Amino acid sequence: MKKIDICLSPDLIHQYDLASTVVVVIDILRASSSITTAMAHGVKAIRPVESLSECRELKLKGHIGAAERGGKKVGGFDMGNSPFSFMNPELEDTKIALTTTNGTITLKKSKGALQVIIGSFLNYSALLAYLERLPCDLLLHCAGWKGTVNLEDTLFAGAIIYGLKQMFEYNSDVPLMALNLYKIAKNDLKSAIQDSSHVARLMNLGLEKDIDFCLKFDEYKVIPVLKGNYITKMKLPDMLF
Amino acid sequence: MKKIDICLSPDLIHQYDLASTVVVVIDILRASSSITTAMAHGVKAIRPVESLSECRELKLKGHIGAAERGGKKVGGFDMGNSPFSFMNPELEDTKIALTTTNGTITLKKSKGALQVIIGSFLNYSALLAYLERLPCDLLLHCAGWKGTVNLEDTLFAGAIIYGLKQMFEYNSDVPLMALNLYKIAKNDLKSAIQDSSHVARLMNLGLEKDIDFCLKFDEYKVIPVLKGNYITKMKLPDMLF
Repeated sequence: MKKIDICLSPDLIHQYDLASTVVVVIDILRASSSITTAMAHGVKAIRPVESLSECRELKLKGHIGAAERGGKKVGGFDMGNSPFSFMNPELEDTKIALTTTNGTITLKKSKGALQVIIGSFLNYSALLAYLERLPCDLLLHCAGWKGTVNLEDTLFAGAIIYGLKQMFEYNSDVPLMALNLYKIAKNDLKSAIQDSSHVARLMNLGLEKDIDFCLKFDEYKVIPVLKGNYITKMKLPDMLF
Repeated sequence: MKKIDICLSPDLIHQYDLASTVVVVIDILRASSSITTAMAHGVKAIRPVESLSECRELKLKGHIGAAERGGKKVGGFDMGNSPFSFMNPELEDTKIALTTTNGTITLKKSKGALQVIIGSFLNYSALLAYLERLPCDLLLHCAGWKGTVNLEDTLFAGAIIYGLKQMFEYNSDVPLMALNLYKIAKNDLKSAIQDSSHVARLMNLGLEKDIDFCLKFDEYKVIPVLKGNYITKMKLPDMLF
């Protein structure tokens, strides 16, 4: 049977064999939600980069520069990491260089997988429909916070386990743990993550509307996929089934 | 306020500042349960070692050799890692060299902490009484399984959070996650861990009575403490309050 597992932090990714696995990168607050939003609003491609200097360099080469650290937009760049800023019609057909505190590292550490896609509540059902039909193992790769495990990414991983209706065999205890946490939380996700460290951080920055938006199910049907250095909207030839 | 956190795998321990922290090492199935049992039954000291060759060398130097890999006793040693084997009256006042799949690595990686103690359901209330009075931060260090996160160690960490009555501030999302998982599981721990990968592994080896024993609360009042290379029973001068 196909197997599913959850890597709770990019610092644990060395534990997993990625070569025959589709990896779903999860950074609910906010990178994976923002990337999904960007793809749904016509952004041509997003290049995730780890450092501010790489982002700056790509900005000089014609990319829009999006940079976030610790929840805040970094000075000197065009935008930060709020999903709302990716709805701007002026971004249509542009290339964006994006660096964030956790999400971009998680994407980089997922390289080597059969395919790397990006998941969020915003594209939940589209993602599930794709994952259900995959002929291979799955790994849900949570971005966490600077290497530590966080609640909202674990809950979304649990939401995927919940939605997949046990068509996959659990390859460790973590899928069951995430599923149980999601079951407690699912009727009121916002309350459930109220005590999360990152939620408190974003609330303090006045970003409650970002949080509310990132917890919305099925706003979009796109699935962002990482190909080479760029994330684009998944098209028919990218589909593995 | 004093802080509490949970490290879900020894592969994440680099994330934590140990110097001013008391670390509780947790390997419910079975190292921390067996070490607690040994201390309660008069074993003088246990030396945790990582490799079979170190264990063999110490056996030649007069230690009892206890070695387990993948749930099984390793050939050529005096004993494995079952708590029942540590109840043997012949072990009274002996020194044991112990190597296990996960627990001994977790102990080694905890070095550098203000104090390293060993926790299990078997000494739950004694442990809580000690922890409640500590004047410093706490880290619960789960052994997991070969670097991945496991259910039973996370549940015991949750049991500690539950028992401590929120006298500590949570330093990440993990204490809340473990607490919630424990609350679901607490009325029937055995059923809750029935689907755990390691439980299945031990069941297949015919070790159900080990599992039953390792889930018993408060069999003993001892707290094992790591001092230098040896684990001994905590005595008054070892107490940090």
